[in-house]
Amino acid sequence: MLRVVVIGSGNVAQHLIKAFHKSAKAQLVQAYARTPEKLSHLLDSNHITSDFTTLADADIYIIAVSDDAIAEVSSQLPFNNRLVVHTSGSTSMEQIDSKNRRGVFYPLQTFSKTKDVDFRTIPICLESEEPDDYRMLEELAQSISDEIYNITSKQRQALHVAAVFVNNFTNHLYKIGSDVCSENGIPFDIMKPLIQETAAKITILTPEQAQTGPARRNDKTTIQRHLDFIQSDNQKTIYTLLTQSIQDTNG
Amino acid sequence: MLRVVVIGSGNVAQHLIKAFHKSAKAQLVQAYARTPEKLSHLLDSNHITSDFTTLADADIYIIAVSDDAIAEVSSQLPFNNRLVVHTSGSTSMEQIDSKNRRGVFYPLQTFSKTKDVDFRTIPICLESEEPDDYRMLEELAQSISDEIYNITSKQRQALHVAAVFVNNFTNHLYKIGSDVCSENGIPFDIMKPLIQETAAKITILTPEQAQTGPARRNDKTTIQRHLDFIQSDNQKTIYTLLTQSIQDTNG
Repeated sequence: MLRVVVIGSGNVAQHLIKAFHKSAKAQLVQAYARTPEKLSHLLDSNHITSDFTTLADADIYIIAVSDDAIAEVSSQLPFNNRLVVHTSGSTSMEQIDSKNRRGVFYPLQTFSKTKDVDFRTIPICLESEEPDDYRMLEELAQSISDEIYNITSKQRQALHVAAVFVNNFTNHLYKIGSDVCSENGIPFDIMKPLIQETAAKITILTPEQAQTGPARRNDKTTIQRHLDFIQSDNQKTIYTLLTQSIQDTNG
Repeated sequence: MLRVVVIGSGNVAQHLIKAFHKSAKAQLVQAYARTPEKLSHLLDSNHITSDFTTLADADIYIIAVSDDAIAEVSSQLPFNNRLVVHTSGSTSMEQIDSKNRRGVFYPLQTFSKTKDVDFRTIPICLESEEPDDYRMLEELAQSISDEIYNITSKQRQALHVAAVFVNNFTNHLYKIGSDVCSENGIPFDIMKPLIQETAAKITILTPEQAQTGPARRNDKTTIQRHLDFIQSDNQKTIYTLLTQSIQDTNG
């Protein structure tokens, strides 16, 4: 059974710790946190360290820290030639100190502290320098997920960009919808079934097939009525740009 | 028990017919379709008419046709002083011919022919000229849904604008995500768990709480790397505008 150490105490680290804890096919031997209390609700204190010199022996070390700390953390590891991976969508594998064998273990999902996720459905994107290491990463990923992808650095960058569109920007459209509701005394709850269905549709239709609305129909009367209704210049600009983009795409 | 006639054969009409059919608390006495065959998979032929002069007696007539046909269809109804409603988010109640009592019965959801929906969770937005008619609409709406809202014409217009943002524009962001994937040889399936989770989060967090990503963190390095990566001018413009909007909103 593969032995793994998770380094970090943020959202990704905590969800990984929970997932490995549940798995019968990998052994979480230790976690590292600068502030061990952040992990005390997940692990016994003898499985947490805040001192790199006491890191346990393991087959794979997963650095799950913020992007700009990956290089430094990896350089502080007190060993050589072991397999060290990071979990970042937008950081190159080469940011990891070259004294160890390097790889990427990127779970493509949005994590929050307050909401549990089913890790078995989360795509894990793997990359490594060495084919043998890839097989080890694959075995580790399979221990917690059913969705494993071999993804190059260039593809990972594309995925991160795509994720910004479908996750961060989509959430911002929810925010605009919420603002329009509250400006008009409407509870945002009324929008939630529509939001869920919009996402659900994409599991059985392509985005092209699922596209509806005044832009798709080229319904100029409704588009103009909406622009007349919208007060905020920012919302007007976004409405105009996305309407134009739908018309260019689906027209 | 309220007796209802549905006029129309499109997506909304068909989903309403199915919902009333299932309901024990309302009676669908007839449906009107210019082309009766469009409804023959849902109703016996003796419950379908294509002739306005043979419309059955009912408590409520629901006009579920395209927005620009509502006025004309309502003027062709061969009776007066009955309750006639439309199902449109963006059409005023006054588009209905004034020879009848008027109202709105707007289900806030995206309907497609190929995907069933649970009507009990769909918000139905009601409006009427007369309070007595409102109570009748409420009883009818309750027969198929648990989410009933009293919504003015102005609020309905706001809802329709908000729906364009959270549904039509969100779907277009899925399309952009899908394009970025296919340009880089990545199956779009890899994005689907993230899309589902983005929508699911909004049921327990506000959009402000759920906002993450480089724009939210003001991570200029990642934003610039993404802009360098994106080839399409259109995608670049959308990325820049939505990033700026998130920073103005959450910054």
